[in-house]
Amino acid sequence: MGTQNIYDDEGFLAGYGQLPRSVHGLDGAPEWPTLRGWLTHLDSARVVDLGCGFGWFARWASSAGASSVLGIDVSTKMLDRAAADTDDPKIDYRHADLESVALPESSFDCAFSSLTLHYISDLARLVEMVFASLVPGGLFVFSVEHPLFTAPSHPEFIAVDGRTVWPVDGYLDEGTRTTNWFTDGVRKQHRTIASYLATVIGAGFEIAHIDEWGPSDGQLAEHPEWINERHRPPFLLAACRKPRA
Amino acid sequence: MGTQNIYDDEGFLAGYGQLPRSVHGLDGAPEWPTLRGWLTHLDSARVVDLGCGFGWFARWASSAGASSVLGIDVSTKMLDRAAADTDDPKIDYRHADLESVALPESSFDCAFSSLTLHYISDLARLVEMVFASLVPGGLFVFSVEHPLFTAPSHPEFIAVDGRTVWPVDGYLDEGTRTTNWFTDGVRKQHRTIASYLATVIGAGFEIAHIDEWGPSDGQLAEHPEWINERHRPPFLLAACRKPRA
Repeated sequence: MGTQNIYDDEGFLAGYGQLPRSVHGLDGAPEWPTLRGWLTHLDSARVVDLGCGFGWFARWASSAGASSVLGIDVSTKMLDRAAADTDDPKIDYRHADLESVALPESSFDCAFSSLTLHYISDLARLVEMVFASLVPGGLFVFSVEHPLFTAPSHPEFIAVDGRTVWPVDGYLDEGTRTTNWFTDGVRKQHRTIASYLATVIGAGFEIAHIDEWGPSDGQLAEHPEWINERHRPPFLLAACRKPRA
Repeated sequence: MGTQNIYDDEGFLAGYGQLPRSVHGLDGAPEWPTLRGWLTHLDSARVVDLGCGFGWFARWASSAGASSVLGIDVSTKMLDRAAADTDDPKIDYRHADLESVALPESSFDCAFSSLTLHYISDLARLVEMVFASLVPGGLFVFSVEHPLFTAPSHPEFIAVDGRTVWPVDGYLDEGTRTTNWFTDGVRKQHRTIASYLATVIGAGFEIAHIDEWGPSDGQLAEHPEWINERHRPPFLLAACRKPRA
């Protein structure tokens, strides 16, 4: 079974397209400064973006010095907009399902994936292929919805005795979670943090950086409505390196 | 300020001494099989145990082939019992506070620490010293109370609409948590998973294994009362290696 393609659903896309990260791109994604800090040595790098969406990252990577950027996505509507938004000859877009896509071996210096891997059922297959597609010393930087975010049967903050808490259940029970997010029946794959890390370590990567992203004091001053995100981080970020030896 | 020494409190020790892991040792610790599986190549190894308690691990390591085992603990009462329980000339015990203890450089093949590091305020100092005390290729295996366990202001399961949930708040706010556990006012240091991993990576370690321990199906069949531990893992386990190069 391929990935559920909610991003080509008209109702979903209408809502998703209004998110700050859809309207403002990387600058509308509060976790982006952390990821950007890990994306060093992009000069002349061959880059692949797994789940490229509207192409914001592909355009940034090109402007940051990449020699080529391949953006892959399952949503033709997002790819159409991405293609319409650039005439950069260094950027290519490919329509493919990450559950089955094949990447050429030893062909990239950097792989990137933003908020996509939690939709993938066969994560080990994809991560092993990413590892093979990178040259020695190559970097794999990704973000996913945080496992605390994906775990609960009812993923909404609740009030208990005047406190705001995030009600965790089923954290260790990995598998499909179905939620409503701009459209009904959105399917995500819940995995533990240890499971994500064991998958990248098992593929051969070394973990270089890891972050459970939440708003900084500076970001909270600008967005006080994000206060609850410090109770339960929304994103897990990681940078992994393919060993040189 | 040194580590709070609850383990020399008579009331605490009376309660703690009744735990399965106090009465039955490693066999009473359900996370032990995972840790044991990572403790390879102990033959002729020089081992240090940070927070050795009653000495169960020290005796096991000696029986597993270690050439020497140094057990360190802040509790004289636990060390007295540990010393009384062995006449193994390969085992030494030392009374010291892990906040300030000094270890000799390049002197150990394996460092171990069970459910101790979440009491330590200056974790970076300790981890950097452990790194320096290991030979290249040396292994550091540890367990801590899981950050989901230490985070909440009220760390107890609650019932919400017929579900059992673990109420998470303050996950990203690291620092001291004060709880009641056999005695009042037990102080622990809450850190995120990313913080633990960043500390070991920052010291120079490579992460070899990580596990968020919860009971397996087999363990649940034997201990059905552990069912809630699958909602929220109680322990975080890791194995880290000092690179050979």
